Amino acid sequence: MKYSNIPTAQSLVHHCKARGIKNIIISPGSRNAPLTISFSEDLFFNCYSIVDERCAAFFALGISQQLMQPTVILCTSGSALLNYYPAIAEAFYSDIPLIVISADRPSYKVDIGDGQTIRQENVFEKHIGHSANLKQDVCHATHKIRKYDPDQLVEENIDQSQILVQKTNDKALNKALNIAIANNTPVHINIPFEEPLYETVEESPLLPQIELLKKQGENGLDEWQDYIHSWQNASRKMVLVGVNPPNAVEKMYLEILAKDPTVVVMTECTSNLFHPNFFPNIDSIIAPIEKSANKEELFKMLRPEIVLTFGGLIVSKKIKAFLRDYTPLMHWHVNPKKAYNTFFSLTKHFKTTPNELFKNLLANPSSQESNYYDYWAERKDHYKLRRQQYLLEIPFSDMWVFHKTLESIPSNYQLQLSNSSTVRYAQLFDLEPSIRVFCNRGTSGIDGSTSTAIGASIYEPSPTLLITGDLSFIYDSNGLWNNYIKPNFRIIVINNGGGGIFRILPGKEETDNFNTFFETTHNLNIQSIAEMYNFEFESVSNKIDLIEALGSFYKASEKPKILEIKTPRLLNNNILLSYFDFIS
Amino acid sequence: MKYSNIPTAQSLVHHCKARGIKNIIISPGSRNAPLTISFSEDLFFNCYSIVDERCAAFFALGISQQLMQPTVILCTSGSALLNYYPAIAEAFYSDIPLIVISADRPSYKVDIGDGQTIRQENVFEKHIGHSANLKQDVCHATHKIRKYDPDQLVEENIDQSQILVQKTNDKALNKALNIAIANNTPVHINIPFEEPLYETVEESPLLPQIELLKKQGENGLDEWQDYIHSWQNASRKMVLVGVNPPNAVEKMYLEILAKDPTVVVMTECTSNLFHPNFFPNIDSIIAPIEKSANKEELFKMLRPEIVLTFGGLIVSKKIKAFLRDYTPLMHWHVNPKKAYNTFFSLTKHFKTTPNELFKNLLANPSSQESNYYDYWAERKDHYKLRRQQYLLEIPFSDMWVFHKTLESIPSNYQLQLSNSSTVRYAQLFDLEPSIRVFCNRGTSGIDGSTSTAIGASIYEPSPTLLITGDLSFIYDSNGLWNNYIKPNFRIIVINNGGGGIFRILPGKEETDNFNTFFETTHNLNIQSIAEMYNFEFESVSNKIDLIEALGSFYKASEKPKILEIKTPRLLNNNILLSYFDFIS
Repeated sequence: MKYSNIPTAQSLVHHCKARGIKNIIISPGSRNAPLTISFSEDLFFNCYSIVDERCAAFFALGISQQLMQPTVILCTSGSALLNYYPAIAEAFYSDIPLIVISADRPSYKVDIGDGQTIRQENVFEKHIGHSANLKQDVCHATHKIRKYDPDQLVEENIDQSQILVQKTNDKALNKALNIAIANNTPVHINIPFEEPLYETVEESPLLPQIELLKKQGENGLDEWQDYIHSWQNASRKMVLVGVNPPNAVEKMYLEILAKDPTVVVMTECTSNLFHPNFFPNIDSIIAPIEKSANKEELFKMLRPEIVLTFGGLIVSKKIKAFLRDYTPLMHWHVNPKKAYNTFFSLTKHFKTTPNELFKNLLANPSSQESNYYDYWAERKDHYKLRRQQYLLEIPFSDMWVFHKTLESIPSNYQLQLSNSSTVRYAQLFDLEPSIRVFCNRGTSGIDGSTSTAIGASIYEPSPTLLITGDLSFIYDSNGLWNNYIKPNFRIIVINNGGGGIFRILPGKEETDNFNTFFETTHNLNIQSIAEMYNFEFESVSNKIDLIEALGSFYKASEKPKILEIKTPRLLNNNILLSYFDFIS
Repeated sequence: MKYSNIPTAQSLVHHCKARGIKNIIISPGSRNAPLTISFSEDLFFNCYSIVDERCAAFFALGISQQLMQPTVILCTSGSALLNYYPAIAEAFYSDIPLIVISADRPSYKVDIGDGQTIRQENVFEKHIGHSANLKQDVCHATHKIRKYDPDQLVEENIDQSQILVQKTNDKALNKALNIAIANNTPVHINIPFEEPLYETVEESPLLPQIELLKKQGENGLDEWQDYIHSWQNASRKMVLVGVNPPNAVEKMYLEILAKDPTVVVMTECTSNLFHPNFFPNIDSIIAPIEKSANKEELFKMLRPEIVLTFGGLIVSKKIKAFLRDYTPLMHWHVNPKKAYNTFFSLTKHFKTTPNELFKNLLANPSSQESNYYDYWAERKDHYKLRRQQYLLEIPFSDMWVFHKTLESIPSNYQLQLSNSSTVRYAQLFDLEPSIRVFCNRGTSGIDGSTSTAIGASIYEPSPTLLITGDLSFIYDSNGLWNNYIKPNFRIIVINNGGGGIFRILPGKEETDNFNTFFETTHNLNIQSIAEMYNFEFESVSNKIDLIEALGSFYKASEKPKILEIKTPRLLNNNILLSYFDFIS
């Protein structure tokens, strides 16, 4: 074992270890050497090296997303740190505990014209659970603290100051790391290091004062009765689920909800909740209402008395617009930490887990009679039939491709979706229940889907499939720049030659300006990226080739694979828009 | 002509136009549509489309770096904006006026679970000249303001509120844009837009209240006499120049400085100042002193009484370390805006331009006798001779390659250097005076050199050459993802298979951990990037091939070109370190 001889570097390593924080994503640099050395030389940690900090942070986010544990990202001083910001904002809104560690110059070197030096303290303060700005060690090396000589007053003063610094830093580290774990939120720890940066010791003599998080008791929910009463008496209840990890809700409760005639459970592809009675294609329910002559009446029929939400952000714009226009009497959100007032009608935040809530709420069956479920179930049967018909009729296009592709995914795959066309198309279809679905919906950016997917595949025993669009794939092509891509990793790039989502805009005209500044058309060859990063590659652009390609795409291989599917840019939007007419 | 019908969108366009701000870099999105439409439909503006916001911002920085004028970057809401941050920090420390415009959701939609929504207001506040948070228009469309009906009280209230919003926003825009221009600093303008976002009008009826910047009079420098006196009486004066645009100092003054026996002018490759009597290879002067037996004595001889600095940040770590250890009696910095206390001994900030200072300071010749210049000129002659000898002896390696490459650059080229090995190696050699040199030394990041170089080439009549390392080239490979690369654009990638700079670390051991987490070795094929972005490509890895390749590399071509030079990873550092022994 080898550690940096800098006390705070050692201390931080101990703090992480004590909390079981094992995964450390390191971007190269000199200022962070004390931590790079200490983490990478200690076999407790799994260290990963990723050069582009933007990718490194999303890769870490992918690991945390799957393990539901904190992951460390570590970088040098200067603008390196700022490249973490997109992933930090995503983690902030998706409740993912990234531990952001930045090495800094000593504070007296900030803003005096030194290289790679910026104002790092609190730089993420708008989107971070906590910022800890550690103090610089007074005594540079740990061995100095041990070799304490009572006769030397100067040394003594140094030692006393150093002990104080150490105590202060321990306190700051306890606070930051415990907040990350307790609140599932990113935290930023900034550490100034003075040169020399590369000196090491064989063992770490430090005994930092580590205070682990005390597990808090469940919040007492003493006001159950009123809510149970409301629930049992309402005849139209909608359960709406956002981004939600697999297996987060017990089957038993799902069964009760699914069989309650007063309940409609609306799920998204990112909800990871399945039951034949659920409604997994929200827009296919709502779009036909929007187009209907008796729109008003139908929306009133759909309007729930109670909306119960859990999970993260909602993809469907249509359900958000509907619930904002036809506000429910009550909106309850279930989450141990926070509740967004997404429909401007939040009445109750249950600070607990869905399971805990359902244990109480669903203890006794609801006695209300209602045709709420039945009515909408019939509409669901209708659009499913029409969808089948439509898919038989349409030519090769984004919609047809998504249908075939999603259908082709083998059981138990992890499915990662990019923003934003991809996740929106996926919402139109039903997925096989064993497939677990993830998408960065905290900020819904196109910036880190590939890196996230690769990070998420690291500890996943099943294969991982990323479905992405051409723009988000090229945007995050540096996501492939690492040595951690498993041979069973699969990427499908649906290449419609630009940002296809912009074709669906109202009032769009086919002008040069539209093509350049909205759709941003391109003719780039995805194959070059595949070659650069040593992927198997195939490109298809019609129905027969796609079906054939999908037939072999999931087979085991020595290298990971990219399948590019080129779709007709000018056709896609009409086929999508006509779909909603067809099912109406 | 076509404009968004949203008043503030129109207003912003007028404000930019009135100030001659012509260059607008747009990243695609929906929320920014009102501005995308208004800018791109107005022929006054030169609009550029770049998808990856990190690259877009550096591209803009490159344009501003050359034109010394503000450039707009415009993006949609959410994490898109955060990808601008690395370039904003670079602009902040390099005094470049980027106008950062972010479209935002209306404030009531922030933090309620809407997509692509973050806390945009003041998000860059640590590294920005000014943040303007505009108010949302009350009356959505400009035509409403015109159709003012005095009989309708509600309408009237809306109109009155809207007029107030408009006045407030005008004031905020005047302030932000004038600060950017006056202080050469990035500013951030955040604008909330409500839907509908795509409605247009044929003309813009708005007459915003534009207050252009009043040119301020030169600072009265009434205390000239004392400083002139000090200057004339000092027998050891060092002029040290950081990043500095070409032709910033009049030849006449350079001549006076060059011929003064009491003056040593130290320049860097980014100083863009040339005279045979100047000292362009700082480290080649200082490294031999560090290695000398009578180091102390030599450093005392070099120690200046006055250090006069101008320009941006200094690359050479050695000169910084020297001047911090052997502090001058006086450190004067010349800059209209700010002065960094780089050597912890700043005594005077002349808030003016170097020309203005020299006009006064150098009006009468210094009468002091001194051998300061002569002594160091002799050392310079010595190392130049030794350097010549050394270059004849060494094998193919980074050092030899930089020598040959820099020597090969045709006259009048614009030369862009990446961080950090590249600019450091370039410091060791002399450049032909007609070559103008640029490097992002504000934060010295590896993150945007390619994008910057391409932006900088846009309005440059001469060809542009970027010399970059493999890590920084791959890091910013998305920099090539645009349609604005001119056929005379040239890139030389010096590929030493990793971050060669880390090999020069003290105490480095040849371990797996070193190779993975510091050097970050890779075997990536640069050719794939060249193919993807349609560059001519050649790769060489020995002396003969390189000389031959350079012979044709600068010739006119239909496509831009990349020349990869593969150097021996394990050899490079020894050859560099031995160089300083050899010249000592």
